[in-house]
Amino acid sequence: MALHPDRLFPIEPASREIARRLYDSVAGLPIVSPHGHTDPSWYAEDGPFPDPATLFVKPDHYVTRMLYSQGVRLEALGIARRDGAGVETDGRRIWRLFAENFHLFAGTPSRLWFEHSLETVFGIADRLGFRNADALYDRISDALQTPELRPRALYRKFNIEVIATTDGALDDLAAHDAIRASDWGGRVVPTYRPDAVVNPEAAGFAGNVRKLVEITGNALDWEGYLAAHRARRAYFRERGATATDHGHPTARTADLSKGAAALLFDRILSGTVSPEDAEVFRAQMLTEMARMSLDDGLVMQIHPGSYRNHNPSLFAAFGPDMGADIPQPTDYVRALKPLLDAFGNDPRLTLILFTLDETSYSRELAPLAGHYPALKLGPAWWFFDSPEGMRRFRETTTETAGFYNTVGFNDDTRAYLSIPARHDMARRVDCAYLARLVADHRLDEDEALRIAHDLAYRLAKEAYRL
Amino acid sequence: MALHPDRLFPIEPASREIARRLYDSVAGLPIVSPHGHTDPSWYAEDGPFPDPATLFVKPDHYVTRMLYSQGVRLEALGIARRDGAGVETDGRRIWRLFAENFHLFAGTPSRLWFEHSLETVFGIADRLGFRNADALYDRISDALQTPELRPRALYRKFNIEVIATTDGALDDLAAHDAIRASDWGGRVVPTYRPDAVVNPEAAGFAGNVRKLVEITGNALDWEGYLAAHRARRAYFRERGATATDHGHPTARTADLSKGAAALLFDRILSGTVSPEDAEVFRAQMLTEMARMSLDDGLVMQIHPGSYRNHNPSLFAAFGPDMGADIPQPTDYVRALKPLLDAFGNDPRLTLILFTLDETSYSRELAPLAGHYPALKLGPAWWFFDSPEGMRRFRETTTETAGFYNTVGFNDDTRAYLSIPARHDMARRVDCAYLARLVADHRLDEDEALRIAHDLAYRLAKEAYRL
Amino acid sequence: MALHPDRLFPIEPASREIARRLYDSVAGLPIVSPHGHTDPSWYAEDGPFPDPATLFVKPDHYVTRMLYSQGVRLEALGIARRDGAGVETDGRRIWRLFAENFHLFAGTPSRLWFEHSLETVFGIADRLGFRNADALYDRISDALQTPELRPRALYRKFNIEVIATTDGALDDLAAHDAIRASDWGGRVVPTYRPDAVVNPEAAGFAGNVRKLVEITGNALDWEGYLAAHRARRAYFRERGATATDHGHPTARTADLSKGAAALLFDRILSGTVSPEDAEVFRAQMLTEMARMSLDDGLVMQIHPGSYRNHNPSLFAAFGPDMGADIPQPTDYVRALKPLLDAFGNDPRLTLILFTLDETSYSRELAPLAGHYPALKLGPAWWFFDSPEGMRRFRETTTETAGFYNTVGFNDDTRAYLSIPARHDMARRVDCAYLARLVADHRLDEDEALRIAHDLAYRLAKEAYRL
Repeated sequence: MALHPDRLFPIEPASREIARRLYDSVAGLPIVSPHGHTDPSWYAEDGPFPDPATLFVKPDHYVTRMLYSQGVRLEALGIARRDGAGVETDGRRIWRLFAENFHLFAGTPSRLWFEHSLETVFGIADRLGFRNADALYDRISDALQTPELRPRALYRKFNIEVIATTDGALDDLAAHDAIRASDWGGRVVPTYRPDAVVNPEAAGFAGNVRKLVEITGNALDWEGYLAAHRARRAYFRERGATATDHGHPTARTADLSKGAAALLFDRILSGTVSPEDAEVFRAQMLTEMARMSLDDGLVMQIHPGSYRNHNPSLFAAFGPDMGADIPQPTDYVRALKPLLDAFGNDPRLTLILFTLDETSYSRELAPLAGHYPALKLGPAWWFFDSPEGMRRFRETTTETAGFYNTVGFNDDTRAYLSIPARHDMARRVDCAYLARLVADHRLDEDEALRIAHDLAYRLAKEAYRL
Repeated sequence: MALHPDRLFPIEPASREIARRLYDSVAGLPIVSPHGHTDPSWYAEDGPFPDPATLFVKPDHYVTRMLYSQGVRLEALGIARRDGAGVETDGRRIWRLFAENFHLFAGTPSRLWFEHSLETVFGIADRLGFRNADALYDRISDALQTPELRPRALYRKFNIEVIATTDGALDDLAAHDAIRASDWGGRVVPTYRPDAVVNPEAAGFAGNVRKLVEITGNALDWEGYLAAHRARRAYFRERGATATDHGHPTARTADLSKGAAALLFDRILSGTVSPEDAEVFRAQMLTEMARMSLDDGLVMQIHPGSYRNHNPSLFAAFGPDMGADIPQPTDYVRALKPLLDAFGNDPRLTLILFTLDETSYSRELAPLAGHYPALKLGPAWWFFDSPEGMRRFRETTTETAGFYNTVGFNDDTRAYLSIPARHDMARRVDCAYLARLVADHRLDEDEALRIAHDLAYRLAKEAYRL
Repeated sequence: MALHPDRLFPIEPASREIARRLYDSVAGLPIVSPHGHTDPSWYAEDGPFPDPATLFVKPDHYVTRMLYSQGVRLEALGIARRDGAGVETDGRRIWRLFAENFHLFAGTPSRLWFEHSLETVFGIADRLGFRNADALYDRISDALQTPELRPRALYRKFNIEVIATTDGALDDLAAHDAIRASDWGGRVVPTYRPDAVVNPEAAGFAGNVRKLVEITGNALDWEGYLAAHRARRAYFRERGATATDHGHPTARTADLSKGAAALLFDRILSGTVSPEDAEVFRAQMLTEMARMSLDDGLVMQIHPGSYRNHNPSLFAAFGPDMGADIPQPTDYVRALKPLLDAFGNDPRLTLILFTLDETSYSRELAPLAGHYPALKLGPAWWFFDSPEGMRRFRETTTETAGFYNTVGFNDDTRAYLSIPARHDMARRVDCAYLARLVADHRLDEDEALRIAHDLAYRLAKEAYRL
């Protein structure tokens, strides 16, 4: 067994003992996964996962970006080029490249997630490297053919209670319908992610909006557009959705008059869009979404602050999500004010905030969430979904916002096999944090036990209304 | 005894031993409280404090904001509405609300302050909760009727050597006069806080300025206005003041010519004020205050960076200081330059800087204070007056500015009973920090003992010229 | 022996043991010093160092700024005034001032560097203070007369394998030629630092540029200017240079057309320079330098973010580098984009980034370096060349960029005697960081041993192509 039972716990023995007790009390809790990117068709079709490279390397931008940063070409990792030029297709050769460069991941969460999956799913406790690359490739390939490693079996093995996917506003949710129509007992719910019909700078935006109003039988004007959103949200809710998600460059919100919003909508649909118009439109739509959430009860999530597609030649060759999204400073205090002025005091609204700018935790986000009834803090996100990132999240938010203005953990991943690894890491890091508070007498252990349970299970379920 | 004697000390046993020795050497030192918000009439009148809810819940914005963030209405906490509409008046019911929600404060300094007060002042070592809410309410209510819990008796019990209040420029300081005229031996000194006559965006500014020049017999022009400040500062100094305090949205300073300043003053007094004029006027006044400090020796404090009254509907209903002040990014490098160009090299000036933007500690404040003779760093403030906040303050400032460009602790509170709890927390966290430096051999223990004493007592007294 | 063998290691005993093992494996490795400010004439002439004050106090801006911040006048420290007015010339009196104020350095890296030098070079294990100031002055003075303390002997004693100096573009590198012409076996290489001919706001810029084109036989136009840079880079490379260095106020880069760049060059040379023109010119030159690096293989370093000469009256009296350079917020995501768009994907380019704004580590620098093949992260710099600074550097960069997008340590100093102290501190702090990862099972010890070796030795050598 290579995964040490005390990994990520405090080093000092007495606090490690406390962390162990706390962790033991939550380790077996079901996984509630209220935000993520697994493909609903996996659960609908329940087919086998492909080869190890396609499972662990090619689709994982944490992995490919690190290899790329050290000079490995994306073509050699089998990433498809937009121009159709040839890329590596031999999974074994891609896997070897990963294995040879495995030392690059020392100290990263990718390493910990990978080894957790390797051991708990495949029973492999060896460290990957040049020497055993082929042997491990074979073992994993063989295991992937067994029924125990189909998506539905893993759902049970992983002890998932409910998992949310993320779905475009125009998605027909056929895979979700198929899951619900089947006799399978798993709970997979969609999430309404309308970026493609909300962001005027998204590729194909105007066409998307036309399609949106068309499929909902609405007019192509501001009121029709809002009605179409309401219709699609209802469609998602009927299929189990409890939340919406908004990935915007900034957290800016606006609260225009109806007339001004309608004019902006017309301007945006009728020609070239200025960056400021695009920004204000996105801003206005966050406020509209909050307004709709007050009506239909969908929990709202904002994921702002990423400079998407920072690398234009890589984007041209390979498209988005290739590891070239870079965080930038993100303002919340002024940006959120129009939305908060309108709805921030309403405890019926739940607006969950994320950040890629850690400086905002103690300065802005904890003070905001520690005041506004509508606001909650999402967990450490993306680059910060890591032991140090999670620790800093707790250390910089708890003293001002407490634990109960946070919402438990999100795995936020499309890497299905890493889901238990990620929840396990979050539970360990939270228990380690709590153990330190107990050990220096800021908290009693019975309180820490209750909080550990809430962070691992209850808060996610309640905040996301699952 | 519920308060553990080792609370907030390092967890590792050898460094905990060191921390304990350091703490034992400073635990009994008198409290020097150079910046705070207690009411001087308490000491003048020496009446009993009211009920537990009025003592611990209603006036404490740390407490009410947390409850509000979780959906508790301020009316239910007995906070008076501006429109006079009815609010809860039964202290016991307010106390019960607090007790039922006490788990929200896990991991926050409010929890630690409250329990310290409960145990050291009332002898109550139980954790507050739904079950014992009424019993504790009764015990505290009874105790508050005893002479031992009057302000003057507590002053002695708390071992306060000197405490500063914060007073408006127009305040007649009658309570201070009454204290000085009495035969009581406590030392309570005022602090000159002229925001209401300096900030053109403050409510009633023009009227305040008129009153300022009137009561000092000066003309309503720039020179008269400055003379009025000098007169009021002298009035404060005669009553024991050693410091001024300035709560501005930013740290911006300016050094206009006399002519330009006079024109700005006239413009501001004669009509609507543009935001930029208001900002420049405040900026200019910081430099004027520094100039006056060089004449009269008053120590100067700047508390910038709060976005006040972020929540307009809450402000409309309840007024200011309801927990809706949110920090924002704060620049010091460019903002302070005009003032520093003028007076930064003069070691006779003491200008103490605070921040709500922790990123400025290592990047701007420590480098500035580690260079300019006039600058010192105030302690971790407001949201950062907490174990983690104080630790980060030391970890991000000491290596560049050392200990001796800092000024000890400020309790900065109107919660009288929490004053010993806050000083105790600061002493513990500083001793814990020092113990770690001793344990990994960055410092010898005899040095740490000296520094612990300086941080707990001497630096505050010297920096504030008390 | 006052230097404790376990200094800067984790406090908890088991992890301290691990750190000790890691450190023992790297403590004896040669010093590779790829970026610093020692004077090449020291090695060329091999004369004795002057008195203790001139060695330890006067030229060390970390030391003089701290003393100045506490009211010690620079004149009393023997710092020459530009107006030629008298300053203290008695080294012993300067030394006494330092000794009397030695407590100010508690908790600072200066203290640790000083004591390391004192003990390992002079065999003095006493703490400096008022009482022993004279005795230590005498012991150090005597030792400085011995041949063992000449620069070349210390180079051997310090186990330096190679050391880079930093040299202006117009420097004839005569001292470097003298070293290479001598029979001494030390390796001292220059670094191309063209700020004086690149920054239009540098004193004497126009004259410098004229001299640059003149000595390389080029025309005074954009093409001639670029050709002159290429010629000087070749001149530096012939003398062993492997790197360039660029100290700019910001990290801004630009990628103008040839025509626009030529017009900008002409405008800048022909009159007063607007701040924006100056900024764009510097920005364009970073991209030009990257282009040249792709041709000639010189590694490129950018050191941005310092507000130089923040204190104008001090600058007027004493000149630059007197401790009045203050960090400011520094953007990388947008600033570097033009250069990265052009060359960021080319693994043949090595561009090493530094920062004085620690918020950029986790938000911008680690994500950028964890993606772009051309980018690497330089070590914690200047105010952050300290135990806490180095720890924060690893904690905020490793999870996203790993260890192999960093480049080992830079001592970056003109304080020759502190070089082993600084490398020792970096090795200790890195081993402490690694030991914690081993102790909480994020890393195996054999991996940590390999990484410790890489951080202490191999990465610097490889990244700087030494």
